[in-house]
Amino acid sequence: MAWDKRADMVVHEVEPFNAEPPRSALTGALTDSSSFYVRNHGPVPETRPGHWRLTVSGLVDHPLELDLEQLRDRFEQHDVIATLQCAGNRRAGLTAVRDIPGEIPWGPGATSTARWTGVRLADVVQAAGPAAEAEHVAFEAPDVSGIADPAQRFGGSIPIGKARSPEVLLAWAMNGDPLPAVHGAPVRVVVPGYIGARSVKWLERIVVRERPSDNFFQATAYRLLPPEADPGAAGPGDGISLGPIALTCDVTVPDDGATLTAGAVTVRGYAFAGGTRRVARVDVSPDGGRSWTRARLDDPAGPWAWTLWHAVVDLPAGPGEILARAWDDTAALQPESAAALWNPKGYVNNSWGRVRVTVEPPGQVG
Amino acid sequence: MAWDKRADMVVHEVEPFNAEPPRSALTGALTDSSSFYVRNHGPVPETRPGHWRLTVSGLVDHPLELDLEQLRDRFEQHDVIATLQCAGNRRAGLTAVRDIPGEIPWGPGATSTARWTGVRLADVVQAAGPAAEAEHVAFEAPDVSGIADPAQRFGGSIPIGKARSPEVLLAWAMNGDPLPAVHGAPVRVVVPGYIGARSVKWLERIVVRERPSDNFFQATAYRLLPPEADPGAAGPGDGISLGPIALTCDVTVPDDGATLTAGAVTVRGYAFAGGTRRVARVDVSPDGGRSWTRARLDDPAGPWAWTLWHAVVDLPAGPGEILARAWDDTAALQPESAAALWNPKGYVNNSWGRVRVTVEPPGQVG
Repeated sequence: MAWDKRADMVVHEVEPFNAEPPRSALTGALTDSSSFYVRNHGPVPETRPGHWRLTVSGLVDHPLELDLEQLRDRFEQHDVIATLQCAGNRRAGLTAVRDIPGEIPWGPGATSTARWTGVRLADVVQAAGPAAEAEHVAFEAPDVSGIADPAQRFGGSIPIGKARSPEVLLAWAMNGDPLPAVHGAPVRVVVPGYIGARSVKWLERIVVRERPSDNFFQATAYRLLPPEADPGAAGPGDGISLGPIALTCDVTVPDDGATLTAGAVTVRGYAFAGGTRRVARVDVSPDGGRSWTRARLDDPAGPWAWTLWHAVVDLPAGPGEILARAWDDTAALQPESAAALWNPKGYVNNSWGRVRVTVEPPGQVG
Repeated sequence: MAWDKRADMVVHEVEPFNAEPPRSALTGALTDSSSFYVRNHGPVPETRPGHWRLTVSGLVDHPLELDLEQLRDRFEQHDVIATLQCAGNRRAGLTAVRDIPGEIPWGPGATSTARWTGVRLADVVQAAGPAAEAEHVAFEAPDVSGIADPAQRFGGSIPIGKARSPEVLLAWAMNGDPLPAVHGAPVRVVVPGYIGARSVKWLERIVVRERPSDNFFQATAYRLLPPEADPGAAGPGDGISLGPIALTCDVTVPDDGATLTAGAVTVRGYAFAGGTRRVARVDVSPDGGRSWTRARLDDPAGPWAWTLWHAVVDLPAGPGEILARAWDDTAALQPESAAALWNPKGYVNNSWGRVRVTVEPPGQVG
């Protein structure tokens, strides 16, 4: 498998490489790097060791140019365990409602969790002396994307309040090893709680700005358009810009389409509340929503990591659906059905988790 | 009508006084004080002019005792337009699913918007010199509530991060007039974006603490319990503590139960996203959810005020339902049905807005 990924990755595209692990691989507190999902918008750029430079410019008093050694020496090193999640995660649940041409039909695996090591973006921006009118911090990478119109390098931005939060890193290591090329070596941004697109890989430029980035992937893509909009005609500023991830939850065990035996079954899954919110409760239904059982929540590996959960439920015989739904710590519940969430680019399917199963009576086995 | 309220208030209880305006009164950017909902937990305390004192104590270097004149003289005055909303707003939608004994069946009107004038809580807490370990700011009032077990004065708390936000006021005026007795005179807290219970009226004590308030209304009430819980047996810390309001939206025109003529009808309503979130989009359905129309959003009166909206829709003849649903600026949608939200104390019904109407064919009228 390309890029040192496990053999059973679900590869949606080879170039640019886009792949997610199977549902069953999402059951650990950390996702090993060979299982971690990959969302690329262009070819992985070639990096020449020793040639990488990071510039910090825009609304700053002291523009910076740093090589990797300077970045590591000048700022304090920090670890953050963070779940990343593509805004298109679980898009398959939306394409089941209505087709979404031209977009990758991600399953539940466009999300993974790793330990990231690097320096705080806040420290780097502070060293550059941001001006009083600084409101956003933009990132630029060298990977040129043909998805963009016009074709351009990948980029995006976050509000300066988030950029100043201690969890946002410029990271060179993932799970204790040097960052793999496909995950953004030598240095990437990690923006915990925000859609994956803001965690820009192969970072080269940081620009402090008064307005959000004008890059296609900030201004035009990664925006929630209304159902009747023509995504090909959408322009900068249309729809709702995506930033903090919306509360979501999915079932990872059993697999969608599994055949099981009626009786006690352990159901497992993940839940994640974006922004600064946390998962407070998960309910599981073994019978398509007629009855519900409280799931046990594992302590997450950190405040920016997903919450794994499990519940033992009594599965009735017959074809059925296992559902899961999460509440966050403000007592908000995720929306129920994908139909109400359908949008032309297929973002933010944070409907209740749902797997279809065939359940055989106990007598039929053995 | 008691307490200078409009004659057609829906009075749920006379003592303690609990009342909401009719649905049609919620269509203005500001709610006049005679229409503003009232949620009390005990009798309105008698205040003797000139005798009021505010103390600030707990984890502070310089405990304070201030009379009203000192509070006004010592700190800068600020105005904030803020929507307040009871955690039980729209409980009637939950009691329709399953009975909720002992709780007020609030309709859509346990929410209103006013201009508040006072000083910033942040300035007052800062003047007292909070200790490094300060994590919460608690409020205490003199109104003794028989709802609490044991009977006790009303109180609550907010995290210190929120207490330091500039929108949180100690207010003595409402819509430009002195605060009415029933709304907390001489001074109340106003915590924009949080459930109304945290905006403690008749404020007398502020206590800076390491932990949230132990008061019954913080530790035991105003918590989301799971459906199977016995609310009478719930103890401190059970369920999810309520703070930031969950995204909600309701129809204010036409009224629930109205008889209308088929054809073009203007539907109006409010939407509100709690915490630091904003309303980004509202859709209206004239036909129970089969088709949807984008609503026009008015600019809210301020960042902490509700968003009023309207849409002209084509109403089909027959008995039907008009629905409304809101997205916030993180592209999160409110949940669809009240059934999934049912909980033993009836909090956080933030399901889609829904009014039942009877629509007559155009020929039948006139």
